[in-house]
Amino acid sequence: MQKVEVFQETSSDSLSLRVYEIGKKIGPTVYIQSSLHGAELQGTAVIHELILRLKSIEVSGTIRLAPAANPRSINQLSGPFTQGRFSPVTGDNWNRIFWDLANPAQKNNGGLDLKSFVSNHLNSDFLCIQKAYKNLIKEILKNKLCSEYGVSESKALAYTLQGLAADADYVLDLHTGSKAVRYLYVPIHCRESAKAFFMPCNLLVPLEFGNAFDEASFMPWVHLTNTFKEAGRNIPLQFESYTVELGSEETISLHDAKVDAERILNWLGSKGIIKYETPYSFPTPMACHLKDYKSYFAPSGGLMDFCVEPGDTINKGQILGNLLKLDKIGTDSAIVPIQSNAYGILVSRASSSNCHSGSEVFLVMENPEPL
Amino acid sequence: MQKVEVFQETSSDSLSLRVYEIGKKIGPTVYIQSSLHGAELQGTAVIHELILRLKSIEVSGTIRLAPAANPRSINQLSGPFTQGRFSPVTGDNWNRIFWDLANPAQKNNGGLDLKSFVSNHLNSDFLCIQKAYKNLIKEILKNKLCSEYGVSESKALAYTLQGLAADADYVLDLHTGSKAVRYLYVPIHCRESAKAFFMPCNLLVPLEFGNAFDEASFMPWVHLTNTFKEAGRNIPLQFESYTVELGSEETISLHDAKVDAERILNWLGSKGIIKYETPYSFPTPMACHLKDYKSYFAPSGGLMDFCVEPGDTINKGQILGNLLKLDKIGTDSAIVPIQSNAYGILVSRASSSNCHSGSEVFLVMENPEPL
Amino acid sequence: MQKVEVFQETSSDSLSLRVYEIGKKIGPTVYIQSSLHGAELQGTAVIHELILRLKSIEVSGTIRLAPAANPRSINQLSGPFTQGRFSPVTGDNWNRIFWDLANPAQKNNGGLDLKSFVSNHLNSDFLCIQKAYKNLIKEILKNKLCSEYGVSESKALAYTLQGLAADADYVLDLHTGSKAVRYLYVPIHCRESAKAFFMPCNLLVPLEFGNAFDEASFMPWVHLTNTFKEAGRNIPLQFESYTVELGSEETISLHDAKVDAERILNWLGSKGIIKYETPYSFPTPMACHLKDYKSYFAPSGGLMDFCVEPGDTINKGQILGNLLKLDKIGTDSAIVPIQSNAYGILVSRASSSNCHSGSEVFLVMENPEPL
Amino acid sequence: MQKVEVFQETSSDSLSLRVYEIGKKIGPTVYIQSSLHGAELQGTAVIHELILRLKSIEVSGTIRLAPAANPRSINQLSGPFTQGRFSPVTGDNWNRIFWDLANPAQKNNGGLDLKSFVSNHLNSDFLCIQKAYKNLIKEILKNKLCSEYGVSESKALAYTLQGLAADADYVLDLHTGSKAVRYLYVPIHCRESAKAFFMPCNLLVPLEFGNAFDEASFMPWVHLTNTFKEAGRNIPLQFESYTVELGSEETISLHDAKVDAERILNWLGSKGIIKYETPYSFPTPMACHLKDYKSYFAPSGGLMDFCVEPGDTINKGQILGNLLKLDKIGTDSAIVPIQSNAYGILVSRASSSNCHSGSEVFLVMENPEPL
Repeated sequence: MQKVEVFQETSSDSLSLRVYEIGKKIGPTVYIQSSLHGAELQGTAVIHELILRLKSIEVSGTIRLAPAANPRSINQLSGPFTQGRFSPVTGDNWNRIFWDLANPAQKNNGGLDLKSFVSNHLNSDFLCIQKAYKNLIKEILKNKLCSEYGVSESKALAYTLQGLAADADYVLDLHTGSKAVRYLYVPIHCRESAKAFFMPCNLLVPLEFGNAFDEASFMPWVHLTNTFKEAGRNIPLQFESYTVELGSEETISLHDAKVDAERILNWLGSKGIIKYETPYSFPTPMACHLKDYKSYFAPSGGLMDFCVEPGDTINKGQILGNLLKLDKIGTDSAIVPIQSNAYGILVSRASSSNCHSGSEVFLVMENPEPL
Repeated sequence: MQKVEVFQETSSDSLSLRVYEIGKKIGPTVYIQSSLHGAELQGTAVIHELILRLKSIEVSGTIRLAPAANPRSINQLSGPFTQGRFSPVTGDNWNRIFWDLANPAQKNNGGLDLKSFVSNHLNSDFLCIQKAYKNLIKEILKNKLCSEYGVSESKALAYTLQGLAADADYVLDLHTGSKAVRYLYVPIHCRESAKAFFMPCNLLVPLEFGNAFDEASFMPWVHLTNTFKEAGRNIPLQFESYTVELGSEETISLHDAKVDAERILNWLGSKGIIKYETPYSFPTPMACHLKDYKSYFAPSGGLMDFCVEPGDTINKGQILGNLLKLDKIGTDSAIVPIQSNAYGILVSRASSSNCHSGSEVFLVMENPEPL
Repeated sequence: MQKVEVFQETSSDSLSLRVYEIGKKIGPTVYIQSSLHGAELQGTAVIHELILRLKSIEVSGTIRLAPAANPRSINQLSGPFTQGRFSPVTGDNWNRIFWDLANPAQKNNGGLDLKSFVSNHLNSDFLCIQKAYKNLIKEILKNKLCSEYGVSESKALAYTLQGLAADADYVLDLHTGSKAVRYLYVPIHCRESAKAFFMPCNLLVPLEFGNAFDEASFMPWVHLTNTFKEAGRNIPLQFESYTVELGSEETISLHDAKVDAERILNWLGSKGIIKYETPYSFPTPMACHLKDYKSYFAPSGGLMDFCVEPGDTINKGQILGNLLKLDKIGTDSAIVPIQSNAYGILVSRASSSNCHSGSEVFLVMENPEPL
Repeated sequence: MQKVEVFQETSSDSLSLRVYEIGKKIGPTVYIQSSLHGAELQGTAVIHELILRLKSIEVSGTIRLAPAANPRSINQLSGPFTQGRFSPVTGDNWNRIFWDLANPAQKNNGGLDLKSFVSNHLNSDFLCIQKAYKNLIKEILKNKLCSEYGVSESKALAYTLQGLAADADYVLDLHTGSKAVRYLYVPIHCRESAKAFFMPCNLLVPLEFGNAFDEASFMPWVHLTNTFKEAGRNIPLQFESYTVELGSEETISLHDAKVDAERILNWLGSKGIIKYETPYSFPTPMACHLKDYKSYFAPSGGLMDFCVEPGDTINKGQILGNLLKLDKIGTDSAIVPIQSNAYGILVSRASSSNCHSGSEVFLVMENPEPL
């Protein structure tokens, strides 16, 4: 276990990551982190379980694990819950702080000079390209941490975590939803690979950058593939990264962690990093494209009585919840039903019944199909 | 429905209470409020249900209901939850802001001159004393709202709510626990009366002041009884007030609200305010004295896997939860069991698995006995 | 004065904007809003002053003013200050919520179909194009507020404010810095016009979108100009929008508001919207390009003793502040000086001495030149 | 320097106090702590200065110093400021968490058995009583930290800090106001001693318990004196504790820290703990009784333009501030003047112009007289 200092408190105490490495240096590298959002705890229990399990399994490659990847956030209690989604200082969503370092527009901002790299490696073999590219990414991130102007708290975390994943071939970022089913963000080129997780719900995402960790992990390889293509050479897009949503926030279950570990071990097995096939049987994974993943927002303030649970199939017109309007208390018009606009699967609902107008209350996979 | 302005925002918008009154002016007065702590929502659903039910029941007296009794707090969303236990400005716990107005030490602070009152009413009949005393309380609270120095936000709420309850004979303050069973705070002289609520757990509290609303409601009558006694006359302590804990915070269930309303209607029936006896059957209520209501605090930081649920009977030595310590991830010593110190009933547990050292994690009724 | 409801609270109370309109319907439209960030108060005092002043000045056009443009945020007190920079629910920075509605990529998201618009108006006269374009923008924003899925709190505010500015030719968004001098964000094509504000510091920004209100205001006109150009016609970029930074957060000064109003009235005069020239004399405005506007971040945790004040000229190597490190208390090495990397002007410094590693502490205009 | 662990984070990282001790073990003990409220920073700079100064001064006794006495709180940044007055988890005001351990009512709660102590030491000499009593206090606090139910976060801090002061004869708790002058809370029996601080404002407080650290420090000695008196023996009340308010929150000045250190060194000199007399000259200290220390609260929401500064003498009827009401913007009735009710000295004003109805805006010493 290695400690990596990320933050320093006013009191001069430091907050560090603990990073664990399993396996041998030959073969692919898998990077798994959890609790980037400090209220999303289950992944940390799952990493504990994975390390225990991997003690008796041979690993062909390296598995690097960073539980509690954001000590600032997991330590940030507020009332009975965790202030975990965004920095209490800047409001930065901890999973929108990452850097598209190989984007040509970032070249003057300390980013990667992709054109030079490609022209230098136009005829290199692919393994050599991979290795050189990983080293370049690592170096660029290290440089950003040494600015003479200092580095903001968010960026210090971003560069550190991207650095830990710099040499990875596979990245798993373990999160949770609000009150949610297990689900997975699947980059569109990983649709086939994703089946090995047996996640009940799967969101197919385009290869675009939206500042999240999974995207910041795959984008350098997308840019690389594209730039080689422009230069006339086709190289494969072999990199995979997933955001893995392990149920509901603010809670852990060691029992469920065993099941969650099965999914991940099975996927590691499917990739040949370990020899493993889960004995568990899981229902058919369902999927939809990100554009069909719809949020419902409360039409007015009030208190929501939820009528459906995560994982439920919902029909068009079905009542998802009844909103109790406080200016109509004691009358029949106090109850405003929230109806479904389309057939789908409820992936997640709000953690609290307490709604402002515009509070996000339901997240639904429309047009679901088998993964 | 009457609107009572309590707060004015920076934007000049006002935040008001809605107060409903049912019944006729003859007979006793019941005051019921909910959601003083803004995250404790179920009572507001219960008041909605009560008003609907009372439309077809004759009321011998007055039932005054104030749902969402603290609009500042219920509107205060923070992340996916409600910042509801204390003022975000001052930290004042919204149920520790109230005033022991008849305490002799408060006389120079605008409080009630109890000695004068008693000597003036030494030979009055009890009904006349009650009426005069209620009027005096109301007047004193009204005066406090008109200070030439202004009134703090917390005190403005305190005086307003105490004013709404000033003429009451019975007070119900509807709250919830964290993840909790239904339970009741029962002033010791109300032990017999409390049975009609059929609450599974009951905490017997001494007649002392700790700044809470139930206490601020009964203390003037305790002081009155004591002062009359010192003056040589025994008058009855006929006042009752309860803090009613309706399950878990951050959630409403309209279905459960029907059951909760049954409890309250049955109690109103037992008091003769309505003619009603619940057709529901409930298990035997259990009780303990407040000194036997014990909190467990996390011995270190970590993530708690809860092993017992509210309402469970627990034995001495039983594991209540397993704390996953993040500096021991992947080792057997990562799991620290939290064991029960004594036989009891779990009333409530923390809402989140996320623990600092010293986080309150379990609340247990020790030495339970039938109510 | 018109009230525009934006938010509805849990309690069913609504939070509304107050919008004031001065002038006649002929001529250009100016839209001025303040306190989008709820802690940035001075602009609201300035709008008060402007309305008073404009009572005795003839306006050739329309001046629409929205003080306290974000009632959610200005009402959000937290401790002794305002939780004003971002939504306490989502973390959304209130000035990064806006929509680049004419960006071609937004067409499938309800955005403007710019290609159709341009081909329909290829030969229209410019005034007619302006009018039709403003109407189209207004309509698109109105549609977005009527989604069958509801609208998130942030988006509801964004669409409402962009709607209020939809028909504007000039937009001023009044903000403040932390502890800051008066300064201005100047879109590069407005460099000449900006001189009439006489702001001591001016940041020249490229015509790009970064989700802020000033950018969301000018981008439709930038897209329009570009698309016409692609279609072979040159139309002028006549639209102007500025973010106006009026000193320090958390404070108002009615006295300073008179001076701030002079700057704005003088600029309105320079545009011909009013007949006015300020009698005040101001020092020479200085400017730099946005790329030369540099942030310093604390290199470690500690307490900062600030050695320079906003507006100060600073030399390379000058000590900007001394950071007291709490693990070195009582020793000479407790004081870590923070030195300037280059010659410049201090625009702003942190509001608090309390620093984590990575706290933003100084904002400096490097390579300053006369505007 | 000794590190004392107080808190453990979820991440298993600990937050510790640093405690410094200067002097020899013979003679009286002085305990000085700072930044119990995490936003009140100047005291920590002053302790840094004191330690530097005391390196060249001989100390007759022990001076124990705990800068940053509440690492949880000083590290708790929120937006651009410190969430410093109360626990973000429980709302507990960090200076209202302390324990009146010698109060007879606390005997069954693990408190001190004062009657036994007094009867055991009825004829002991005073030095022996002092020593035995200090040891008993220390032991009782140590026991409370070892409860089998765990200890809440607030109580863990309270018992630790009270333990550090358990053997002290003098206690200084360094705080700051909002925007404030230097001022001192003076227990009534220390009025004469307090003069040596030369603080411009002094609040004379009765010997009563209100849960603050200065009170929790002196109350055991008050109880001891009283109980001896009841047992027929007069012992002196030789203990002194002060809350020292060093200007405004959220800021440090190393320059001002030198002046603040002079005040404290001069007082230490007056007590004979060091040989020192300040060469500085200070204006005459003024004082009032706590009952004459008055708070003004905003009569409505709005933005306050402050018209007086801390330290200003104010006359009855003088305008302290003008409140800009946002529903009256652009009209003459928008400005509501806040007038003084009496002659006095402004000790402190709110840190922000942003007011809800009931926000505390001015703190005034009425009936001021020379200390």
